[in-house]
This record gives sequence, C-alpha cells and structure tokens, in this order.
Amino acid sequence: MVKDIEGQENERPLIFIGNDDGFRAGGLEALINIAADYGDVVAVAPFEHQSGKSSAITVDFPLRVHSIRNTERVKLYSVNGTPVDCAKLAFDRLLPRVPDLLLSGINHGYNSGNSVIYSGTMGVVFEGSFRGVPSVGFSYGDYMPDADFSLCEPIVRQVIEKVLAEGLPEGVCLNVNIPKCERILGLKRVKSASGYWKEEFEERVDPHGRVYYWLTGQYHNAEPDNPATDHYWLNRNYATVVPCRADQTAYDYL
Amino acid sequence: MVKDIEGQENERPLIFIGNDDGFRAGGLEALINIAADYGDVVAVAPFEHQSGKSSAITVDFPLRVHSIRNTERVKLYSVNGTPVDCAKLAFDRLLPRVPDLLLSGINHGYNSGNSVIYSGTMGVVFEGSFRGVPSVGFSYGDYMPDADFSLCEPIVRQVIEKVLAEGLPEGVCLNVNIPKCERILGLKRVKSASGYWKEEFEERVDPHGRVYYWLTGQYHNAEPDNPATDHYWLNRNYATVVPCRADQTAYDYL
Repeated sequence: MVKDIEGQENERPLIFIGNDDGFRAGGLEALINIAADYGDVVAVAPFEHQSGKSSAITVDFPLRVHSIRNTERVKLYSVNGTPVDCAKLAFDRLLPRVPDLLLSGINHGYNSGNSVIYSGTMGVVFEGSFRGVPSVGFSYGDYMPDADFSLCEPIVRQVIEKVLAEGLPEGVCLNVNIPKCERILGLKRVKSASGYWKEEFEERVDPHGRVYYWLTGQYHNAEPDNPATDHYWLNRNYATVVPCRADQTAYDYL
Repeated sequence: MVKDIEGQENERPLIFIGNDDGFRAGGLEALINIAADYGDVVAVAPFEHQSGKSSAITVDFPLRVHSIRNTERVKLYSVNGTPVDCAKLAFDRLLPRVPDLLLSGINHGYNSGNSVIYSGTMGVVFEGSFRGVPSVGFSYGDYMPDADFSLCEPIVRQVIEKVLAEGLPEGVCLNVNIPKCERILGLKRVKSASGYWKEEFEERVDPHGRVYYWLTGQYHNAEPDNPATDHYWLNRNYATVVPCRADQTAYDYL
C-alpha cells in the first residue's frame, strides 16, 4: 500500500513526468494521458521550451511554480527553469513522496546517438536515476509542434508496463526513441551510435553590420552500418531502447 | 611538423582551452599561462560565468565573438553563450585546425562525484572527446573568485605532459580535481563518488508577497568510506583523476 498525492492510502503508483519542450507540448500531454492509466501523475515542465539544455541547472535567478492543472489523478505545474530544475523542484517540494516511476517526454524529435548528452529530456531521466527511481525518457522522430503521438502509444505502454513490473538495475535508466513511420516493426535494445555534429554555425550579418552566428549542423554518424546502434534501427522503422548510466566514469579504463 | 595558429609550420602543439567561469576567471588565466609553455593556445570562454550549464547548447539566440587577446602564442575570445557553445564555435570557426589537446578550467570549485553531470567545465571536455581530441578538465577546491591557483600548477603540468606524450584511449577523457591544502600528497586514479544533492531549494517571499525558490543544497555522498572514489582522496589532500566517457550507454547491462 502506498500513499497517493492527497495522502490517501491506495495501490496506484506515483508517476513523475518531466520534459524539455515545455508544459504546453503535445508530447507531454500524450505521455500524461498514457501514464494516468497506470498511476497518479505529477508533471512538472518548463514554462518555455528548453531544447538542448542537457543537465543544466539555474543558480543565478529564482524559480517560480505555477499550478496548471489539478485533478484527482493529474497535477501539472510549470516552472521558469530548465528541465532538471523542474525535476529537482519536484523531488524537493512538489512530490508527496519518492515516485515509483519517472518518465520524461515524449520529446518532439530524436534523442539518439551522441545527442543524448545535449538532451534535457534525458537530463530529467538522469536526475531520477541518481535518486534510485526507475526512469525512462521517450523521444519521437517528429520535431513538429503538432506531431501526432498516437503512433508512440503501444511502445510507451510496453515499456511502462515492463518497468513498473520489473524495475531497473541499480544506476540504469532507459532512453527510448520511436521512429515516425506507418508501422513500427519492433523494439531493439542497442547502444547510442557514435558520431558528432559538423558545420555547426551559420554566419550572418545583423542590420548594424555586425557578424553573429547561429547554431545549426548535420549529425555525422561514425558507424551508420552498425546494427548494435540506435540510428541503424531507427532508420529501419524499429523503436530503440538504450540502457544508460548517469555516471560517466570509464570503468573499463580504470 | 604542424601549422601554428598563424599558419606557419612549427612543432608546437595547438592547445584549445575552454571553461565555465567566463573569460575573466583567474582559473582560466592560470591554465592559459601554464599551457602556453607547451604550445600555441586558443582559448574561447563564456562572456559571463556559466556555472551548472552542463552540456547545454544555445538554439534560441545568436552568438557573438569578441577577441580579447591576440598575441603570438595566445588568442583569447569571449562568446555570449554556454561553455559548450564556446567549444563548438572554436572547432567550427576559430581554431585553424583540430587541436592536439583540449583543456578546460581551472574551475573555481570541485567537479567531483555526481556533480560532473552539471559541469560546464566537463561539458567542454566531452565536446573534445567526441572529436577524438585528448581532453582534460581541471577543477580546484576553492570557489572564491580570487582563489590562488599556484598550488594546482605541479598537478596540471604533470597531467598535460603525460597526455601530450601518450595521448588517451579512444573515447576516454579526464576529470582532474585538486584539493585546496598546504601540500598535495599525490594524484589518485579513481571513479566518481555516487551520491545526490539534498534539500535543494530555499523558499523565499518576494517584495510583492509571491513565493520563489532558490537552488541550494548539500551533496550527499553515498559512499564516503570508499577509497575507490574521488571524494575519499580529495578529503585526504590527494588530487584525483577520473577517466570519463561522454557515451552514457550502460554496456554492462546491454
């Protein structure tokens, strides 16, 4: 028996949800709707979109919390900070207890290959992982604000059900990517593809004649033909799950 | 024979330096001064301090570059972005070629234990690591802006000389922490201590009666007595080096 978010005893799991696209994002709404079938949901999301914020935290300005939705099974708050600020505030102030499960996303766009390191979606997941909470990030291969997340639902349910039933090994969290395609052929357990971003800055001149740079670029996959990697299978209409650790110690070299 | 930063042929290594405390930081100046003994230095640092920015990148506003210093052996630029923005701009626009070595810091304050994940200093290091450049972050256990970095010098030189001579294994980069003490007893190769931050937000009320939160907290070390960890030795006046990987795939669980 566990306490729900009003302190009542019940058997519904407590599920925390974060994201990096902000509290208005369609991917967040889709994830909340699915998760509410499995437990009581507390979602805390950035006030504005926070793409590429990695595990950044805010030390220079104060954070404010707004309650956006407050129903029996779903509480949604916005915070004027980064994805990880939202998660930290949730664990410290907004959650009634340590949650049984942490979900992040569904991100508008992949967090695959080396992009994991820039991902606020995965920043939230690592935050849960530090606290011993089974934690999963979901990303969908459609960057558009009006992306249709209904295709993701079977994979999201499959992963949630497995993690709620079995948990995850200590220190391990999951990064799930789902391709945009008519029919997903399955779910592959793989590693992140190695690579890097090329030609990243576009040079422009402002109306006052001064140069500025805008981040852009193409991902260069160093192992496009490696079937052990996420990119390989995403390009072939499979969803992928990469088990991850927040700890970046290179144990094999120690 | 390599080309130096003016395109002349010479045998001096090209060294890139980044940080997260900004271009005015004493720790950056100390690292530039040491590195200039070993090669030609190009340093690109944030215009303002950027603590806790992890691997965050800037997608919502344009970046501008200012030349701060331009001598034969040292070029220093500032950029109005994150530590990783600075590194990406350097690799894409400001470096004449791929550097032989990347250094980051010297950070004002430790980047030890789980704090690595929030560290802009280490964000820069991971950026170099993606590109196959031997990359090292240095952090010193004194948070003060006027910290005296002279105590760090022997350790910094020892690591630079070893990495320039031997390189690093593929995908491995280094996180070096140096304690503030009268005499450093040695350098230990260890893993990052496990732990998390507790009691992180201070609640205050603004002059208009509205609640806000400020990030604060205490690090909770989950393994204080483990001599395989960085915290254990930093508390005993040893410097530590943790070999790290940017790739967070949990290979042992795959």
